[in-house]
Amino acid sequence: MTVNSSQKLWMYDTTLRDGTQREGLSVSLEDKLRIARRLDELGIPFIEGGWPGANPKDVQLFWQLQEQPLKQAQIVPFCSTRRPNQAASSEPMLQAILAASTNWVTIFGKSWDLHVTEGLKTSLAENLEMIRDTLQYLRGQGRRVIYDAEHWFDGYKYNPDYALQTIKTAVDAGAEWLVLCDTNGGTLPHEVSQIVTSVIKSFPQHIQLGIHTHNDSDMAVANALAGVMSGVGMVQGTMNGYGERCGNANLCSLIPNLQLKLGYKCIEDDQLSQLAQTSRFVSEVVNLAPDDHAPFVGRSAFAHKGGIHVSAVQKNPLTYEHIEPEQVGNCRRIVISEQAGVSNVLMKARGFGIEIDKNHPKTRQILQRLKELESQGYQFEAAEASFELLMREVLETRPSWFQVKGFQIHCDLGKAVLTTKALATVKVAVNNEDIWEAAEGNGPVAALDAALRKGLVKFYPQIQTFELTDYKVRILNGHTGTSATTRAIVELGNGTQRWTTIGVSNNILEASYQAVVEGLEYGLLLHSQLNAEVR
Amino acid sequence: MTVNSSQKLWMYDTTLRDGTQREGLSVSLEDKLRIARRLDELGIPFIEGGWPGANPKDVQLFWQLQEQPLKQAQIVPFCSTRRPNQAASSEPMLQAILAASTNWVTIFGKSWDLHVTEGLKTSLAENLEMIRDTLQYLRGQGRRVIYDAEHWFDGYKYNPDYALQTIKTAVDAGAEWLVLCDTNGGTLPHEVSQIVTSVIKSFPQHIQLGIHTHNDSDMAVANALAGVMSGVGMVQGTMNGYGERCGNANLCSLIPNLQLKLGYKCIEDDQLSQLAQTSRFVSEVVNLAPDDHAPFVGRSAFAHKGGIHVSAVQKNPLTYEHIEPEQVGNCRRIVISEQAGVSNVLMKARGFGIEIDKNHPKTRQILQRLKELESQGYQFEAAEASFELLMREVLETRPSWFQVKGFQIHCDLGKAVLTTKALATVKVAVNNEDIWEAAEGNGPVAALDAALRKGLVKFYPQIQTFELTDYKVRILNGHTGTSATTRAIVELGNGTQRWTTIGVSNNILEASYQAVVEGLEYGLLLHSQLNAEVR
Repeated sequence: MTVNSSQKLWMYDTTLRDGTQREGLSVSLEDKLRIARRLDELGIPFIEGGWPGANPKDVQLFWQLQEQPLKQAQIVPFCSTRRPNQAASSEPMLQAILAASTNWVTIFGKSWDLHVTEGLKTSLAENLEMIRDTLQYLRGQGRRVIYDAEHWFDGYKYNPDYALQTIKTAVDAGAEWLVLCDTNGGTLPHEVSQIVTSVIKSFPQHIQLGIHTHNDSDMAVANALAGVMSGVGMVQGTMNGYGERCGNANLCSLIPNLQLKLGYKCIEDDQLSQLAQTSRFVSEVVNLAPDDHAPFVGRSAFAHKGGIHVSAVQKNPLTYEHIEPEQVGNCRRIVISEQAGVSNVLMKARGFGIEIDKNHPKTRQILQRLKELESQGYQFEAAEASFELLMREVLETRPSWFQVKGFQIHCDLGKAVLTTKALATVKVAVNNEDIWEAAEGNGPVAALDAALRKGLVKFYPQIQTFELTDYKVRILNGHTGTSATTRAIVELGNGTQRWTTIGVSNNILEASYQAVVEGLEYGLLLHSQLNAEVR
Repeated sequence: MTVNSSQKLWMYDTTLRDGTQREGLSVSLEDKLRIARRLDELGIPFIEGGWPGANPKDVQLFWQLQEQPLKQAQIVPFCSTRRPNQAASSEPMLQAILAASTNWVTIFGKSWDLHVTEGLKTSLAENLEMIRDTLQYLRGQGRRVIYDAEHWFDGYKYNPDYALQTIKTAVDAGAEWLVLCDTNGGTLPHEVSQIVTSVIKSFPQHIQLGIHTHNDSDMAVANALAGVMSGVGMVQGTMNGYGERCGNANLCSLIPNLQLKLGYKCIEDDQLSQLAQTSRFVSEVVNLAPDDHAPFVGRSAFAHKGGIHVSAVQKNPLTYEHIEPEQVGNCRRIVISEQAGVSNVLMKARGFGIEIDKNHPKTRQILQRLKELESQGYQFEAAEASFELLMREVLETRPSWFQVKGFQIHCDLGKAVLTTKALATVKVAVNNEDIWEAAEGNGPVAALDAALRKGLVKFYPQIQTFELTDYKVRILNGHTGTSATTRAIVELGNGTQRWTTIGVSNNILEASYQAVVEGLEYGLLLHSQLNAEVR
């Protein structure tokens, strides 16, 4: 049922132009350069860098890339056709894209009569002239042209004859690629198939078509696939689907679908196995949390919970996985949860380097303890370090680094300021020695963390390298008000590793305290294992 | 090009069962009941409540819904076929779903030979017998049966004959609906169309088909649409696409696509206009941040930035919007536009019974204050009482009932128990009289609430009727660790009304305190307005 075409498809990335239209996303020049170089490594042949005529930051980008060019990819500037009743040669925007000194340029023009008359306030004939003049001028200056037919699908639905005239004009004026855009994102896949097929039929000669889709109907990727299966050879999209409103077609979904399922050639296989890393890199650079549930590249994309699934996937991954996660640089992950069965516990233990037997009574004991804690509100899916400590507790291999014997939090509030400090006092015993320490922090958890470290650093200097990197709070049964059960999750790191721990209590301070204490404990455990290996 | 079928389609929601498989999502019994009632109002005819044989929480859910039934919807329990070589009548899981006392039950069984032999470790013939026996037994007990053919599409690709035998067995045993499941989410739309068409052809009689899709290929919604366009009459999905791994088909995308674009009838138009609110309600209840970029229902789905878009969309919304946002209960939003801001403020004020003029300097002042607070992390969409207090503050109509002059929280912890108490001491001034009060609570917020009431009740006895009904905490910029900005939202009620207030601070205690104080203030304001009306 798969289409074994092995046909080359041209990927065109517009993260740096259309992607930055996403509300809440902003990038510096340096960010753009880093992303462009990373996309180049991924093997994307066309990278749209920006609109230098409209944005001074983009002018800089093209200058920088002239001095230190990309390895393989074509960097492409984006611009509209010239304004009505004006010569292309005297249009400043076009001078700006010529100054970018690229091989290729992308020019967008109007396909929909409504946008010509209501938006541009010009005649249908003048719009055709704007396309012709702009493209001929750029061709005369030695540029190769990709023509983006804006609002193509809506325009074609309302006035197919005029829409076709616009792209025929573009081809006659020297466009090498015609990109059909679903600018408003309202088109469905069966419409894409029908319209692309009609377009191909309407040209006597062979033309190279591209597709540019938006996700307003949750169809951006499906529409791009429908386009390809109807004969389109270039696909425009963005990393992680970033883009205006609901985003653009997500290249992280498109590339694996096209290459692994339909047999098209988009990038090299070893580049495809960098996809998940590239996706996360881009989200880091633009400072947006990665979507854990993203197809192919998300942290949860190959996560299994539920006992039946886990035992089946171990026997034969095909049973619950549509592709091999490694093909896109992702990995299988076994999640610990309420539905956990013995096989989850065993696989998890193996991941932590603990060998236990399926029939050992300790295995059932761990499962029992897990279920008890989960009924109290613990959830180990996002707190694997606490789960390892729990396992070690039952197996009697949990080291004892310190005992917290008492701990007080004091907070003096009442003024509506943003920086009220909290004070924490702790009593900790290390090697039977009692230590009292106190510290201040922005909130009770920061204060507690500070006081604990202050006490422990004398005994465990490695604790200095630990850093609190994330802190999450969730009220579990909200509708009993402020006495509700609270779950706190804490993430710590030591520069090379990160781990998460959990605490649950009616008292938000108690829950946070449990998580912080386990976080420090786990960090010490990691350090001791590392030392053991070195010896 | 649209299919004007006006044909009825049956929506089947599985948020409460498959949706809760999403990593990081957990719901209480109370949460499940609230979601079920809200889906009932949305007009979803089938709501899958859970798997009572596997989960004690789900047993409770069905009991509660027997006592207080839903208005229109069928609540449906979910269960597998009986185990191999055992009578359906002696299968405890099936007793549990009979005890749910529903009209309909959903039974899933294996379609893929590989899962029968490798997963269940039984024969292909016994799997057919498990389907037949289970369905006949349930039909004999008066239940109507929906049969979920698990791994349908993969099973059909590998062994179509056997796959067809499984669903023919289900039909013969009395299943009224056959639901074709893409359990691993690896199928593409053209395959769905081909396979659904083959299934329909392979039955001599008319059969009712459903489709259940997962989003591992970013195709869940497109696949469900392909199924419907090939003749399927029931669509299974979840609110916001929650579900295992990459999620299930998102009903918030499916329903508008089916109803507004393809002309099918899923729910009433006035129910459709509640879609965005229902989506946000569900995300609030499960405490996951709503996806601003979600198609149709996201906050950014109809957001326009850039001058050209904005002026064009104001002249003719069709130019940049694929549907009218109001049809799905969403609204057009002009990003970074003062004018739009002012009209929002005016609209909001009118809602609170406050009449202010568009050109009044106070209006701009409110907007200014709002923007300042939002940049600090305040968000008034879920805290309208705080927004009203803010407006009254600027308009100088905010009454002063009391001033908190100081407040301390003390907490003595250190033992891993679930009931550590916190102590709060407050100093409040009422009518220039200073009062000191102290109280204990399960956590710092409960203690603070108790201490404040104790001090204020002498002056405002109506405060006795106030009750803290909800408390939510969200860490805004998680990656700065425990010093991150914290947003606390508190809901109070007085038996007839409910209101929500907000506090934001680096210190979780400070944020909670702000919200509690405003909550009490707003309750007193409501009470005084009521008295004024009575007089």
